Amino acid sequence: MAPLRESSGDPVLPDPPQGPLHVARARASFPWKELALFWEGEDTLRFKKAIFSALENDPLFAHPRGSRLSVEKYQELNFLRCKRVFEYDFLPVGDMLDSLPRVLALIECLGMYDWSLAVKFFLHVLTFGSAIYSSGSERHLKYLPKIFSLEIFGCFALTEVSHGSNTKGIRTTAHYDPSTQEFIIHSPDFEAAKFWVGNMGKTATHAVVFAQLYTPGGQCHGLHPFLVQIRDPKTLLPMPGVMVGDIGKKLGQNGLDNGFAMFHKVRIPRQDLLNRSGDVTPEGAYVTHVKDVGQRFSESLGSLSSGRVAIVGMSVVNLKLAVSIALRFSATRRQFGPTDKEEVPVLQYPMQQWRLLPYLAAAYALDHFFKSLFLDLGELQQGLLGKDRSVRQAELGREIHALSSAGKPLASWTAQRGIQECREACGGHGYLAMNRLGDLRDDNDPNCTYEGDNSVLLQQTSRYLLGLLARRGPGGARIESPLKTVDFLDGYADILGRRFEGSSPEDLLDSSVPLAAYEWLVCYLLRESHQKLSREKRSGKSDFEAINDCQVYHCRPLALAFLELTVVRRFHEHTHQPRVPPPLRAVLRRLSALYALWSLSQHTALLYRGGYFSGERAGKVLESAILALCAQLKDDAVALVDVIAPPDFILDSPIGRADGELPAQGHTQGKCLASPGGKQVGLLPLPV
Amino acid sequence: MAPLRESSGDPVLPDPPQGPLHVARARASFPWKELALFWEGEDTLRFKKAIFSALENDPLFAHPRGSRLSVEKYQELNFLRCKRVFEYDFLPVGDMLDSLPRVLALIECLGMYDWSLAVKFFLHVLTFGSAIYSSGSERHLKYLPKIFSLEIFGCFALTEVSHGSNTKGIRTTAHYDPSTQEFIIHSPDFEAAKFWVGNMGKTATHAVVFAQLYTPGGQCHGLHPFLVQIRDPKTLLPMPGVMVGDIGKKLGQNGLDNGFAMFHKVRIPRQDLLNRSGDVTPEGAYVTHVKDVGQRFSESLGSLSSGRVAIVGMSVVNLKLAVSIALRFSATRRQFGPTDKEEVPVLQYPMQQWRLLPYLAAAYALDHFFKSLFLDLGELQQGLLGKDRSVRQAELGREIHALSSAGKPLASWTAQRGIQECREACGGHGYLAMNRLGDLRDDNDPNCTYEGDNSVLLQQTSRYLLGLLARRGPGGARIESPLKTVDFLDGYADILGRRFEGSSPEDLLDSSVPLAAYEWLVCYLLRESHQKLSREKRSGKSDFEAINDCQVYHCRPLALAFLELTVVRRFHEHTHQPRVPPPLRAVLRRLSALYALWSLSQHTALLYRGGYFSGERAGKVLESAILALCAQLKDDAVALVDVIAPPDFILDSPIGRADGELPAQGHTQGKCLASPGGKQVGLLPLPV
Repeated sequence: MAPLRESSGDPVLPDPPQGPLHVARARASFPWKELALFWEGEDTLRFKKAIFSALENDPLFAHPRGSRLSVEKYQELNFLRCKRVFEYDFLPVGDMLDSLPRVLALIECLGMYDWSLAVKFFLHVLTFGSAIYSSGSERHLKYLPKIFSLEIFGCFALTEVSHGSNTKGIRTTAHYDPSTQEFIIHSPDFEAAKFWVGNMGKTATHAVVFAQLYTPGGQCHGLHPFLVQIRDPKTLLPMPGVMVGDIGKKLGQNGLDNGFAMFHKVRIPRQDLLNRSGDVTPEGAYVTHVKDVGQRFSESLGSLSSGRVAIVGMSVVNLKLAVSIALRFSATRRQFGPTDKEEVPVLQYPMQQWRLLPYLAAAYALDHFFKSLFLDLGELQQGLLGKDRSVRQAELGREIHALSSAGKPLASWTAQRGIQECREACGGHGYLAMNRLGDLRDDNDPNCTYEGDNSVLLQQTSRYLLGLLARRGPGGARIESPLKTVDFLDGYADILGRRFEGSSPEDLLDSSVPLAAYEWLVCYLLRESHQKLSREKRSGKSDFEAINDCQVYHCRPLALAFLELTVVRRFHEHTHQPRVPPPLRAVLRRLSALYALWSLSQHTALLYRGGYFSGERAGKVLESAILALCAQLKDDAVALVDVIAPPDFILDSPIGRADGELPAQGHTQGKCLASPGGKQVGLLPLPV
Repeated sequence: MAPLRESSGDPVLPDPPQGPLHVARARASFPWKELALFWEGEDTLRFKKAIFSALENDPLFAHPRGSRLSVEKYQELNFLRCKRVFEYDFLPVGDMLDSLPRVLALIECLGMYDWSLAVKFFLHVLTFGSAIYSSGSERHLKYLPKIFSLEIFGCFALTEVSHGSNTKGIRTTAHYDPSTQEFIIHSPDFEAAKFWVGNMGKTATHAVVFAQLYTPGGQCHGLHPFLVQIRDPKTLLPMPGVMVGDIGKKLGQNGLDNGFAMFHKVRIPRQDLLNRSGDVTPEGAYVTHVKDVGQRFSESLGSLSSGRVAIVGMSVVNLKLAVSIALRFSATRRQFGPTDKEEVPVLQYPMQQWRLLPYLAAAYALDHFFKSLFLDLGELQQGLLGKDRSVRQAELGREIHALSSAGKPLASWTAQRGIQECREACGGHGYLAMNRLGDLRDDNDPNCTYEGDNSVLLQQTSRYLLGLLARRGPGGARIESPLKTVDFLDGYADILGRRFEGSSPEDLLDSSVPLAAYEWLVCYLLRESHQKLSREKRSGKSDFEAINDCQVYHCRPLALAFLELTVVRRFHEHTHQPRVPPPLRAVLRRLSALYALWSLSQHTALLYRGGYFSGERAGKVLESAILALCAQLKDDAVALVDVIAPPDFILDSPIGRADGELPAQGHTQGKCLASPGGKQVGLLPLPV
């Protein structure tokens, strides 16, 4: 393959530096640059390289990040970096809608550098900016240039101390006063304080505040968004009546200033109601054109989905970084060996392979799933902007809601467990803060609970699946959906009759076998959940109680298995399509099979219980196939990491360097010895 | 029960403060003070209360700890606190050997306050102190008073940058120079630098340094311990030739100063060789009385075990704290409900019960296991001190080595997962640093990898079990061990013929059912591992390769299942003994059954595969029994927490307060608003 070159003459994909990893790299069965090109596409590779180079060459980004800084210093630096990213204008706003792959790449590049930075940037430009654009009207367009020039800096204030997911409980009020044509924004008590709001802690000047709208006479018209100035843009001092501050240290993402705010009768102009769904006349009459509650619901599902889809992507990035660090370390770190004289790289041990390689496969599988779901979401949002009122559009909203509601849990938990495994697999070196695995784990941590706690969110997906079954009924309509993720359920009864047919590990080395098993598993769990729910209801329980009593062993695994099936199916199709270059086919199919079998192996008990598996042999071939795939992939691991790892400067982990020079080999001695703790201090004289 | 009172008149177990948790507490089925007395014993309760009160009443302990401090400030405070603990002299050295329960209680109390403090204290007094006492001779006794008066402060320096577990690779040298009667301690290069050494980073004045001993003429006599002064006790400046410093920030336990040291031809007197196992005459001749390598090996196993047993205890403490926080929060935090008006405490949801209550049961089960293993270790060490050379003593050493080598992985992983579950189950509040779940997770983290990486360590246990089977052979000797943990294996063949017999969830509500299942499971995995290992060897693989190829799906689960069985058995026996007070029997047996079934349920696939389970019903009754036990225990959860939770000052988590006053209910408003981030700062003016 001819080397890709930028106009400057630099190759887009430079050769990795020489060093101890060279040996491991040379054993790869495939050309990694060809996979990078297939995986990302040339335009994205160029775009990412431009972003990474800009950050690497700018001294502002050369400082440490994450837990190695004090919260105050970190927040300060993070804001300065956020400003600088605006100045670089990597992706002009006008181009965003036309180039979703570049939006994806920008999120990934900034996130790989530091999620505190990426989240700060996108909360302002996408969350705050699109709230004004999509919830406001023409009179609010004047704010958009100010957003992109950073004249104002924004945040999105929905959650309160006592209410998050349950938005009906939001208690901030906005009373309209016709005498001055103003709304009066007010927090009745501390429980109604806005809380957790990203960017609100120290830097936001404006907030989109959700409040219950009251017209004169005391009628409440429900939750509406208002644009409220919370700080003076010159001094950053709070505006009169606004008590605002930072919520304090979190487990991760401490460069982001999450804040709280209480409003004491803060007056804002009538025009600052974001009036797309409802408005108030100067005299105080409430007017709205939205009649169809169902349509509003489906639109709001779409906007909830975008946060969850973004979290899938954040989780995938964290997992990619962690496996890159751990696999490079494992390919060069030597411990023990067949003789006292000879030590072998720890990646040669089947145990180390089994601990790490499935997470490498998961990083690829989930990365593909994320990208495809992001494009699906783009289609949904284009429909919303185009005011598409079709049945298909509504169905698409429901399907994406179901996919993102289980996709976020699957991706964030896989990343959480994967990062922990990577940190442990690097032993003491994984425990040193400078190697970044701790920061990755901490920055990934909120992904498991924000935008809906994972365990609670899974209910959305199981409800969607149970609903499909109910709508079908006996002899009812076909089960199908715009993205075809549920179409297989049409063969529900037939699929339940299937049995496992592999008899040797070789039969399982392709992902079509686990794909078939997953279809059976989802049908089985769907039947079990449906029967259980019916039993609970027949026994006289309320719907609320019956549904709660079906979660643990029925609806929860149903939602997860359905999502795993979808990820497995999409990755299977992607790796088996004819346009995959021949030299990449074997390695990609192995990754697909490994992810599928490893995920499936968590459900072996159900496969046996429901009769899909029988006899000792089935379980044993599943295990043998996983180990065989690990052994086949171990020599490709370093090259597979080269495809997904950012440059060393961005990865920022001494044990994850592309050349494989480990601290233990003496080359980072200077770094260790120059660490802040390395200086001898005489602070603590002993009693003598 | 009459209230326990101290001489001061204060009750040893005061009533919990009134507050929102009162309602949940009142629903308990048993008197919590009676369980506290049964669980801890009166002397321990008094002793713990004295320690907790001393810390609470001393302003030095009133500062924050953990990640809320900078590393430098935290290390400084931690050393001052360590000094203060010496001054309190809670447990005079002379009493330590006679009162193991008080040693346990002291470790637990200091660890509940902060592991950085506890580890710093015990590394000096126990690890450093006993190394001198047990590896030295009469000429070293002079150091002991200096240790207890803090005239010197110590560390234990074995691990080097490139070699930890593999001690044969240690490369620091000690050459004897008869002309001056000195040893010359030297680090040949950075890879041989001592590394990770707790207390060495900033505070230790002396180190027990392990080095290869060379006599004139160049003969190497292997690894020996030397007492080396590394810093001036008045100034804490390094001694000539010693380069010493802190290794930098870690993921957790940052109050502890882990350090590195390189020695450049540092001369120490001949007498500072700790000469229990070998000495050098003034002229340079090496002398030793230890002939029996096997005996030395068994003695060294005993000393390795003590570190691992301690880690079991550390993990249990972390788990206790985490479940205390999460369960109190869950009993008062309300979200959603059967109607819009009525919100229910999240602990009422079966999903929340299932996420948390098994970890509460695990905290009790593992706490009991830890205490019993600590007493077993005490017996072993008394035998070592008494120079017991019996076969039983050697067998005891091997058995405790096997138990601690799998006990550390089981306990540290259970804590790791449990803390993560607790943090997620508390949603955003779990993500706030001030609620401590992050610090608990981070401080627990090294438990998974130090003193032997968990995955590697499990091999020690599986090897022990496979060895027992091999020694037995066909028609061989009985399988038995001093602590009787393996005696059931004598019925190996019979046990393998057993089948599951429970047919309703009620049959499983006692831990005898999972106990029987575990015996079958361990026998099954032992047979599978033995057969697999034989096959691999017959296929021509080396022992090294064959053993490595049996780890993932054979030896690893074998070791874990054996340890789980041991924990389940000991807890079952403890909760079923006649001296359990009648009002406590039901709740303790439920805890025992829940831990046993929940642990067992991870192995359902193997139970089916090996034929112990058959049909859908077996798996379903297992799940139903777990959920039934959760429902039975949910009203006892708060009282069970009261037994294991320390006072609020020690627990140090606003959402885990004994009265149940949550920040969300406005009572810690002052705390939130006064957080460092709460002040408005104008650091970051925007471009206008």
